[in-house]
Amino acid sequence: MIDAATIVLAERLADAAGAAIRPYFRQKFDIETKGDLSPVTAADRASEAAMRAIIEAERPDDGIIGEEYGRVREGARYVWVLDPIDGTRAFVAGRPLFGTLVALLDEGRPVLGVIDQPIIGDRWVGAERRPTLFNGQPASTRRCAAIAEARIGTTSPHAFCAETFAAFDRLRSGVRDTLYGGDCHNYGLLASGHLDLVVEAGLQLYDFAALVPVIEGAGGRMTDWQGRSLGRDSDGRVVAAGDASLIPAVLEKLGG
Amino acid sequence: MIDAATIVLAERLADAAGAAIRPYFRQKFDIETKGDLSPVTAADRASEAAMRAIIEAERPDDGIIGEEYGRVREGARYVWVLDPIDGTRAFVAGRPLFGTLVALLDEGRPVLGVIDQPIIGDRWVGAERRPTLFNGQPASTRRCAAIAEARIGTTSPHAFCAETFAAFDRLRSGVRDTLYGGDCHNYGLLASGHLDLVVEAGLQLYDFAALVPVIEGAGGRMTDWQGRSLGRDSDGRVVAAGDASLIPAVLEKLGG
Repeated sequence: MIDAATIVLAERLADAAGAAIRPYFRQKFDIETKGDLSPVTAADRASEAAMRAIIEAERPDDGIIGEEYGRVREGARYVWVLDPIDGTRAFVAGRPLFGTLVALLDEGRPVLGVIDQPIIGDRWVGAERRPTLFNGQPASTRRCAAIAEARIGTTSPHAFCAETFAAFDRLRSGVRDTLYGGDCHNYGLLASGHLDLVVEAGLQLYDFAALVPVIEGAGGRMTDWQGRSLGRDSDGRVVAAGDASLIPAVLEKLGG
Repeated sequence: MIDAATIVLAERLADAAGAAIRPYFRQKFDIETKGDLSPVTAADRASEAAMRAIIEAERPDDGIIGEEYGRVREGARYVWVLDPIDGTRAFVAGRPLFGTLVALLDEGRPVLGVIDQPIIGDRWVGAERRPTLFNGQPASTRRCAAIAEARIGTTSPHAFCAETFAAFDRLRSGVRDTLYGGDCHNYGLLASGHLDLVVEAGLQLYDFAALVPVIEGAGGRMTDWQGRSLGRDSDGRVVAAGDASLIPAVLEKLGG
């Protein structure tokens, strides 16, 4: 079980990230385009650097995998996985729905996660065998009896390849309603019982590792598109369900 | 020119709408599905009712067109156009990016508009021949030299029909980046210089009337897909550009 001091540290990382990001929000800054065509800014880099400095000072033996500054000590038992700004497209458009993601892996398995939105102050904290907290209060997913009743979220149709989009669209055409945009914030809304499903593909480890403890500690379930638990070796195709009983039907739709 | 008292009244309407909406946000409530398959809640109705009561008391000769409670005195010179919650899908998912839209038409032409996000406190106010204000400070759009440099926003690919989606997709495939979700909030971000284009179809008068004065007072331009000014008789296909010089190239892409 994750000790309380480690959870406090994870929240300190998110605090430091938010403090680094807020001065840039809705201000003028350069936007570079990375190799995968996603944007990156000085705010992404300042946020990750702030988090890494704290980990190096407080947990010098732990590994770190970050979106902007790469990998150190990744063979360690405990590895921190950092996405300083998940949803940089939203961030550069001045939309306060991006988030900072902090995860801790234990032998490759996500055991602690923070989803933090530093502008509007939405924070979800999940840790193995503890209840997920939203801004300090317990969060729980909601029941959903059938795919036809589900409200699904996904960030962008262009995040899928042709094959995964076809699979997603089979599922989407049978749900009650679909909400686009949102990035990691959608998974927080699911943990709090406001959405039933989030389905995405093409995610990196730093995009999904923090989400798993948040959702599972709120009563939901998060798997890959074959129903396997998510970890360091996952392929980036994810399903999050507030009601775990929906997962088999969702996987069947995605499987064609 | 719109007098200051009328602008104050429009902001009072938005204040009343926000006060009616906030108690419902992220709480449990019934969600009905309307004839057009869009959701509606008690919050939509309470918000519109609060605004209509103020108009009836303060401007009993003006007309009203509202999304939830229909039309009265629509032959009047001045007609208020109200969308109590633009983005009900986002609202029911607990996402604070929906907005209340208040517009005033003068002989069918939008001359005053408010875009208000009552949870995070983003408010844009635009009126003919006055500078648009964002939370009380002047807002202005940004220059954008070419479609290839543009960041475009649109709420959902499913808001288009097959024909308009094909047109949108021709444009989208040539822009720098595309952001989904957002509803009316995207138009505010454009007015503040954070997005370059917003292109949508299938909008109703109450979805777009308030946007026009906000965008044009910030230095942008908003037209239909033939380049005509928007008004009561428009067909619901809209282009908003922060840099008006982009409009001809955008219309050419949309035209095929």
